[in-house]
Amino acid sequence: MPETVDTSISPKRSLEILSQREVEQLRITSESNLYPLFRQCVLAILQSGSSSDSAKAMLDAYKDFDIEIVQQDRGIRLNLKNAPAAAFVDEEMIASSREMIFSALRDIVYSESERYNKRVDLNSGAGITDYVFHLLRNARALRASEEPRLVVCWGGHSINTPEYDYTKDVGHELGLRKLNICTGCGPGAMKGPMKGATIAHAKQRIAEGRYLGLTEPGIIAAEAPNPIVNELVILPDIEKRLEAFVRVGHGIVVFAGGAGTAEEILYLLGILLHPDNRELPFPMILTGPESSAEYFQQMHEFIGLTLGFEAQQRYKIIIGDSVKAAREMAEGISEVKQFRVERADAFHFNWALTIDEEFQYPFEPTHENMASLALHEDMPKHILAANLRRAFSGIVAGNVKDQGVRLIEQFGPYEINGDPAIMEPLDKLLRSFVKQQRMKLPGTEYVPCYVIKP
Amino acid sequence: MPETVDTSISPKRSLEILSQREVEQLRITSESNLYPLFRQCVLAILQSGSSSDSAKAMLDAYKDFDIEIVQQDRGIRLNLKNAPAAAFVDEEMIASSREMIFSALRDIVYSESERYNKRVDLNSGAGITDYVFHLLRNARALRASEEPRLVVCWGGHSINTPEYDYTKDVGHELGLRKLNICTGCGPGAMKGPMKGATIAHAKQRIAEGRYLGLTEPGIIAAEAPNPIVNELVILPDIEKRLEAFVRVGHGIVVFAGGAGTAEEILYLLGILLHPDNRELPFPMILTGPESSAEYFQQMHEFIGLTLGFEAQQRYKIIIGDSVKAAREMAEGISEVKQFRVERADAFHFNWALTIDEEFQYPFEPTHENMASLALHEDMPKHILAANLRRAFSGIVAGNVKDQGVRLIEQFGPYEINGDPAIMEPLDKLLRSFVKQQRMKLPGTEYVPCYVIKP
Amino acid sequence: MPETVDTSISPKRSLEILSQREVEQLRITSESNLYPLFRQCVLAILQSGSSSDSAKAMLDAYKDFDIEIVQQDRGIRLNLKNAPAAAFVDEEMIASSREMIFSALRDIVYSESERYNKRVDLNSGAGITDYVFHLLRNARALRASEEPRLVVCWGGHSINTPEYDYTKDVGHELGLRKLNICTGCGPGAMKGPMKGATIAHAKQRIAEGRYLGLTEPGIIAAEAPNPIVNELVILPDIEKRLEAFVRVGHGIVVFAGGAGTAEEILYLLGILLHPDNRELPFPMILTGPESSAEYFQQMHEFIGLTLGFEAQQRYKIIIGDSVKAAREMAEGISEVKQFRVERADAFHFNWALTIDEEFQYPFEPTHENMASLALHEDMPKHILAANLRRAFSGIVAGNVKDQGVRLIEQFGPYEINGDPAIMEPLDKLLRSFVKQQRMKLPGTEYVPCYVIKP
Amino acid sequence: MPETVDTSISPKRSLEILSQREVEQLRITSESNLYPLFRQCVLAILQSGSSSDSAKAMLDAYKDFDIEIVQQDRGIRLNLKNAPAAAFVDEEMIASSREMIFSALRDIVYSESERYNKRVDLNSGAGITDYVFHLLRNARALRASEEPRLVVCWGGHSINTPEYDYTKDVGHELGLRKLNICTGCGPGAMKGPMKGATIAHAKQRIAEGRYLGLTEPGIIAAEAPNPIVNELVILPDIEKRLEAFVRVGHGIVVFAGGAGTAEEILYLLGILLHPDNRELPFPMILTGPESSAEYFQQMHEFIGLTLGFEAQQRYKIIIGDSVKAAREMAEGISEVKQFRVERADAFHFNWALTIDEEFQYPFEPTHENMASLALHEDMPKHILAANLRRAFSGIVAGNVKDQGVRLIEQFGPYEINGDPAIMEPLDKLLRSFVKQQRMKLPGTEYVPCYVIKP
Repeated sequence: MPETVDTSISPKRSLEILSQREVEQLRITSESNLYPLFRQCVLAILQSGSSSDSAKAMLDAYKDFDIEIVQQDRGIRLNLKNAPAAAFVDEEMIASSREMIFSALRDIVYSESERYNKRVDLNSGAGITDYVFHLLRNARALRASEEPRLVVCWGGHSINTPEYDYTKDVGHELGLRKLNICTGCGPGAMKGPMKGATIAHAKQRIAEGRYLGLTEPGIIAAEAPNPIVNELVILPDIEKRLEAFVRVGHGIVVFAGGAGTAEEILYLLGILLHPDNRELPFPMILTGPESSAEYFQQMHEFIGLTLGFEAQQRYKIIIGDSVKAAREMAEGISEVKQFRVERADAFHFNWALTIDEEFQYPFEPTHENMASLALHEDMPKHILAANLRRAFSGIVAGNVKDQGVRLIEQFGPYEINGDPAIMEPLDKLLRSFVKQQRMKLPGTEYVPCYVIKP
Repeated sequence: MPETVDTSISPKRSLEILSQREVEQLRITSESNLYPLFRQCVLAILQSGSSSDSAKAMLDAYKDFDIEIVQQDRGIRLNLKNAPAAAFVDEEMIASSREMIFSALRDIVYSESERYNKRVDLNSGAGITDYVFHLLRNARALRASEEPRLVVCWGGHSINTPEYDYTKDVGHELGLRKLNICTGCGPGAMKGPMKGATIAHAKQRIAEGRYLGLTEPGIIAAEAPNPIVNELVILPDIEKRLEAFVRVGHGIVVFAGGAGTAEEILYLLGILLHPDNRELPFPMILTGPESSAEYFQQMHEFIGLTLGFEAQQRYKIIIGDSVKAAREMAEGISEVKQFRVERADAFHFNWALTIDEEFQYPFEPTHENMASLALHEDMPKHILAANLRRAFSGIVAGNVKDQGVRLIEQFGPYEINGDPAIMEPLDKLLRSFVKQQRMKLPGTEYVPCYVIKP
Repeated sequence: MPETVDTSISPKRSLEILSQREVEQLRITSESNLYPLFRQCVLAILQSGSSSDSAKAMLDAYKDFDIEIVQQDRGIRLNLKNAPAAAFVDEEMIASSREMIFSALRDIVYSESERYNKRVDLNSGAGITDYVFHLLRNARALRASEEPRLVVCWGGHSINTPEYDYTKDVGHELGLRKLNICTGCGPGAMKGPMKGATIAHAKQRIAEGRYLGLTEPGIIAAEAPNPIVNELVILPDIEKRLEAFVRVGHGIVVFAGGAGTAEEILYLLGILLHPDNRELPFPMILTGPESSAEYFQQMHEFIGLTLGFEAQQRYKIIIGDSVKAAREMAEGISEVKQFRVERADAFHFNWALTIDEEFQYPFEPTHENMASLALHEDMPKHILAANLRRAFSGIVAGNVKDQGVRLIEQFGPYEINGDPAIMEPLDKLLRSFVKQQRMKLPGTEYVPCYVIKP
Repeated sequence: MPETVDTSISPKRSLEILSQREVEQLRITSESNLYPLFRQCVLAILQSGSSSDSAKAMLDAYKDFDIEIVQQDRGIRLNLKNAPAAAFVDEEMIASSREMIFSALRDIVYSESERYNKRVDLNSGAGITDYVFHLLRNARALRASEEPRLVVCWGGHSINTPEYDYTKDVGHELGLRKLNICTGCGPGAMKGPMKGATIAHAKQRIAEGRYLGLTEPGIIAAEAPNPIVNELVILPDIEKRLEAFVRVGHGIVVFAGGAGTAEEILYLLGILLHPDNRELPFPMILTGPESSAEYFQQMHEFIGLTLGFEAQQRYKIIIGDSVKAAREMAEGISEVKQFRVERADAFHFNWALTIDEEFQYPFEPTHENMASLALHEDMPKHILAANLRRAFSGIVAGNVKDQGVRLIEQFGPYEINGDPAIMEPLDKLLRSFVKQQRMKLPGTEYVPCYVIKP
């Protein structure tokens, strides 16, 4: 039995006031599916810093964990029973955990509310973009008056020590250049840059540094938000989360990672390859310590073999030089600012970026959908990128997402097939991920959730 | 031709970021009715401090006034053409006007958005209350962590100098007691208390004093928001505005006024007379200088004759003693706090107050509706209060609201009829308002917009 | 017996921490003269808003008033016994009074400490300037990063209602132009501009508006600091106080007043007439409502007859136009900024202004000193101005300063003599002050404390 | 030739405004000794993060480094020539360095000013305490309103990686408990706790965390302030610096270190052994990772053999448990608060602590003074502690302070002699320091600057 604590918390900031009806919706009822969703997010937040990435294990470990929501004189109060002890210091909840819980409450209530809004049209690309915009605005993540300075950092939640230290170095150098950090908000490459930037911001006397974490209910349990995150936004699914990243970020740094990172790279390249985005500046830097040079080489090769030379031109690989990586990012962001000022584009949301609807509609990684992905040599490159993105998305689900894991348990590994010119590099890349222990947190043996069929 | 200025403004605070679709909606199109609404609000805000209360006159005077809305790097920008010069100092717009314009934008866009939300149910009392809550929350007017300290001040926009000075004194004494002010945000009794409180807050070194103005598109042109207002919320109609007052205020001070003030008094008494609210503490103080003693005596008599002794017990009349008025209000609010703490009620929104649906549904002051108001001696008192409230509401519309004025121009005065036991005191009260020049700003001759038929 | 309160206060801001020795010095002992000085200042501060200007009357009325100073866990604590009730709201001291008491404590302790500092040289002009600088810096009244925007407002503490309202209007217009206010911090023309600016700053959403009051122990009892003052500095005597005004202010507005105002005008003109200051921009505007046109005409004539045409060129008289007065001041301050930027002069302290030592050494208004003032036609104008300044300074002392009043009681009126070409205009001016009730607060009959001997 | 940068900086905060005379004093003149002092401090600050602890080497490396001080419109400006490049990011000085330079300026100017103040009496214990108080107050390091929460961390600047990581852990645990950190502000054990606390404060959303560094001109070059320090105070010598530590700190954590740490431990024990301090709560915790258990055992033995059992009772040794160390400190500080509240003692300065004058007068480590230190078995323990403290102080000077190093170069090692019962444990302890490489930064071979003569 893990150690637990009973406690009662209320928001310190007054952003999260609920109406009676909203409180009612969250109450445990057989009809509502909000409560389990909220409970799972809270449990993940309280696991912050945990070394496990198994959502199922976590949910099983705290079966008795329970939240009661109470209207109260100063707003609302949450009574938590059997909460994981790790989020507490001498019986008091760490402030960042408390804040993140109320952020989760806010986002879940808002998403639910928006779902019933006739205004929201989830069947068109413009409608989805609008929805993402509203979720971010409601979370106060869009700041009109701010200069462009938000760097998205992508990379694995399961990386080795030299790689992790390197992400801290890069974060430190970005922070010294007064840049803010946005990540998927879990451990590993999602935590390191924030930690480095925190120290750098302290040195630069920046009290208002932003550490924005964008997550989704399906992944939060596997990638518990790290406690440096001072703005947490929960998007409904991976497609909206990825769109949020590329619309709010002013540049993207990619560290070494596994299938999730590959998904992110393919997503971004797929968008940048869209003919409408050809002129758009969007700094993308792949970087890591000397020891992960091989990873980037493999990725670079895979991209060359599948998406071609043009795709390779949209990013720059920098090995073992955190200062250079940060400096190039800072310069790239200057260009982004220049470009937007000239076109009078918003700083806080990249409206000008064209995202093909292929990248916006949710992809459900059923065995059938995975098997029928079109992966052909002669497709338009940005469509191929979209489908490769889906393939990796399915692998992530099968590795760590609750529903995906259950599907694999039931039906065995996904089958993926396509042209050999695509399948062979794909197979090679995935094998190298496994070999380099990039699929799961080290210490657990990895059983592939997929079979590559040429 | 009035003096005008062309200018371009953008929000200083980043609360008001719009999506592309929202900007589109506001653009001038024959279909959209948002633009004229917004234009009228902006025009009223720029008239701040004006001595006229004729909406029509104002709209006519600035026929060429025009707003262009532009998406822009740091958010949005409004280009104003032929704007009234009064809101500018040496060609630069006064900050409070700029802020209020963006508040208007926010509220109009949000109301429009909510109108299409299936969640909103304007056909039930609970639905309307929920709607009012959402509008206020979206405007950040609900502050979870704040102690109860918001005093609503009601009273005429057209009052004489001793009365105005007295409202300043009361505001000063309330401010010295660290209380905040909420009014209908126009001139006269809506401005005086805020001005007094501003000075008192400066003395008490309170930098965060709240001067909350609640208005509606229909009245804003006649009661231009005074520039002390540092939070402006535009509710869609008078019924929702009145509900907002009684749900966010922790106590109400009523100064002398005319038909609008009578409407407010009857509204509040009607609610407090509801059997469910009998035990609820709600401090209500009617106060004025010696010179307005007569006004309060007449009001007191009218209430006694129509709503009876019980209604008279819900308020206290204090003449010529601003210290006592403020002290009693402060004590009353302590009781409110005590009560809510005991019942774990919210401080920021009075959920516990029962408001009969009679008071919530909009009343349209057509000649037919006015003529068919039931005003009988033997009705339940809170229903009678509701109908008397409607009668006064219609008179306000006929006096100063754009649409009402046009109706009167077209069809002549409203007819109001009912039991003589109600009609006679009503007639007497209205006559005294006319005699005391409480119907319009002084200097204009008043032509009654109603006929009392016994 | 006036109403009194016993209370205990501690500083809210942590600026005023005392060492054990400093606390000891303030304790009541026969040797120390700090305690009576501090007691008198506190009594004056607690009289804030009082309509009396008789220091003696005040000190007599609160003979039992007593302060105990206690070291305490969070700093120090003052136990006040028999304090005037006017500074309290419902038994709690108004925050501005509490703050000003601790400012007085700070300044008195610091002055005392500096007096023993070998570094301080009160026998040279440079030494006195250095001392004034250190007193202001210790009070945090010098702000390095601030733009020039501090307008000194001079004028009588005893002015009539139209004059008072006009000072509010000018303060309001200055505040709308984002300028701050510095005055002698008493009532009348020292309060009006601050009140007007407070409202204007609220409209301009300026939370950090400065209302700097510069006073001296000798005058504070007669001119109790008004509660809008949010920075209070007590300089040791009138000469250092006047130097502080002209070194920290970026421009000066003079309203109608009496002998004190004349002293201030002569002081400033005397400095501006110094050959070294000829090129220095220093906006000086004399302004008042239509009804005080006569006052400014007389002053203008007096200056013309005694100091000549050149002196008249250093100021501008604006009658009945508060907007114009404020606009010209704003423009003048732009020039000051321009000038200082070009010469890399400090914004926060006007080092470049040459002040003749004649203006710096304290003038003690004994009967002998007053009688021996040299007032001759053929003196250099800036020396004549210095002596005329002293004459008016003596009259102010004889009117309202504790020590001066006692001297007059003992030895009768001062004698002032000089060339008829000076004495006649002087006599005429003083008579007009008496006639216009500018010598004392209205309602008390004025008995002149001087005789003009040609 | 090291890489250098020319730059020009001005203070962001307006605390540091200088008078013309103060600027003059700092200008390079043969008479003034302020300039070389200031130059040395700035050079050290710009070396922040340097791995060298040789002051002489540093001063030699940047012989061309030069500072010009300029009065300027917004305050003052420093023009730096040939400054070490390490303190810059892309040519811009890191904010913490800029801040610290202006702190150094403030403290040096103030110390100089105070030296000429007759009030200051450096020939009495009370006078020295008063002086320390004034230096700290002038640096705004005393905060009246703050709860006791300042933990002093002592320990070596030259420690190994496990020890360093452990100091970060303890700092992290202290920070999670909302405690602030004060250290000698160099590297090693002076940096680790601040870094850990920075991350913890970010987690607890504490934006106002304090990282107070207390240093002295003699040591700053050897222990360059780490950039986390957000308040830097330069005390004139080690005795005043030690007094500052024990008067502002609410508890002390001691990590492993060398001679400097031994000096600190003996200083504190000497004070706590004073009969007057017997009842005073003062939490003192010696802690380190498992790997440094030996160090603490040796220290513990040395204290037992020389100062006896009672001295051992004033501290607690905790090995390898950072949570426990932090928790005990938090509890100890609660007792301190309780004690001070009961006795109405100040939170911000421990007036109640009796410090024997033996500990206050500067000890000059000449060969003569070192040789004549009385180190006898039968002395009062707190006097013996004072002399042992001096012995270690001399060794620190001989190791790393500029003047000490020169003395040793000239005259050879110090001779220390006393009773064998003291000399033998001393010799043993020093040998172990050398063996454990605690005397100098690793990588340089240590040549002892002392000889123990029994």
